[in-house]
Amino acid sequence: MTEKGILIVISGFSGAGKGTIVKRLLQTYDNYALSVSMTTRPPRDGEREGVEYFFTDREHFEAEIERSGLIEYAMYCGNYYGTPRAYVEEQLRAGKDVILEIEIQGALKIKEQFPESLLVFVTPPNAKELERRLVGRGTESQEVIQKRLARASEESEGMESYDYIVVNDDLEKCVEELNCLVDAARRAPVRRRGFIKEIRDELKGFAKGAE
Amino acid sequence: MTEKGILIVISGFSGAGKGTIVKRLLQTYDNYALSVSMTTRPPRDGEREGVEYFFTDREHFEAEIERSGLIEYAMYCGNYYGTPRAYVEEQLRAGKDVILEIEIQGALKIKEQFPESLLVFVTPPNAKELERRLVGRGTESQEVIQKRLARASEESEGMESYDYIVVNDDLEKCVEELNCLVDAARRAPVRRRGFIKEIRDELKGFAKGAE
Repeated sequence: MTEKGILIVISGFSGAGKGTIVKRLLQTYDNYALSVSMTTRPPRDGEREGVEYFFTDREHFEAEIERSGLIEYAMYCGNYYGTPRAYVEEQLRAGKDVILEIEIQGALKIKEQFPESLLVFVTPPNAKELERRLVGRGTESQEVIQKRLARASEESEGMESYDYIVVNDDLEKCVEELNCLVDAARRAPVRRRGFIKEIRDELKGFAKGAE
Repeated sequence: MTEKGILIVISGFSGAGKGTIVKRLLQTYDNYALSVSMTTRPPRDGEREGVEYFFTDREHFEAEIERSGLIEYAMYCGNYYGTPRAYVEEQLRAGKDVILEIEIQGALKIKEQFPESLLVFVTPPNAKELERRLVGRGTESQEVIQKRLARASEESEGMESYDYIVVNDDLEKCVEELNCLVDAARRAPVRRRGFIKEIRDELKGFAKGAE
């Protein structure tokens, strides 16, 4: 029987490099699957259906909420964002470790429903570096950067809710670390129930045989 | 400031290869320090003071208990065995990850006093392999082997109390896995308090500056 996969929630400050890390994780190891969110926000230039998001309308999204088709959802700036349940559960059953890239509210909802999920918070080594990366993108106005930093300050209040804090200083090291955390999670007794039961039964058999 | 080290408790069935794993861990990485137990049992041939054990008498051992000089102790077959506190705390303060190789009762006492300690249970891939290894040693009588297997059967009842179950199938892989578990533990928020506080304060500064 295939061992069930691990549900991995990745959050972190805007500019922490979550997207790049996740992409590299998927390229490097073959045990991961990325969950794609559903949204009612219109696609931006270059965004592809089923790759960046599943794009849908409000009516369909609310019908999905109604029938428990989403494991978490939230509204930002008047648009819904949510995680479709079917894909996640299917992939976990197939033994894939499923990655969700979502924010803290969603992360906490996931932990409630999937207590064995792994919550990882990705952060740059310090705030100065976060600012440097946001500025370095060159795509955001000073105002947007300030908003992001203010948002990051709020988000930093939730860091203790995560299982792990991973510092993204060096991409390759960071990806390796993340994979190591998932590997570690696989060794928790809660994910070794089958193995524990088996060796316990075998040992009992030996002990009986000796009587 | 040096980050405090991690206290690692390694338990497991007799024949699981704990000793070899620990030795290899110490050889391969330089962040580990091995705690040496104190005992009132007389030294066996080849055992050296301060290497296998600190050998002492009952009077001194009980004085150590009295003055809280041991972080855990137990009696087996009329002899005391315990873990001297001073060495462990000194090494942790110096940032070393300290390894204790002790049994479940001791492990649980350690977890009570050091909730952030890492409890790892080492096991062979199955009971048959455990028996094979015990027989393969060629040093034990059939009766001793049967006793060890019966003991292992009892010990298997406590496996869920550990943070991690590590299967020792391949020595090198197993050592790497253990090191990965310790690395993961270093990323728990409880061990990142300083980092979290720092980045939080910096971000607050940025947010303030923008007002």
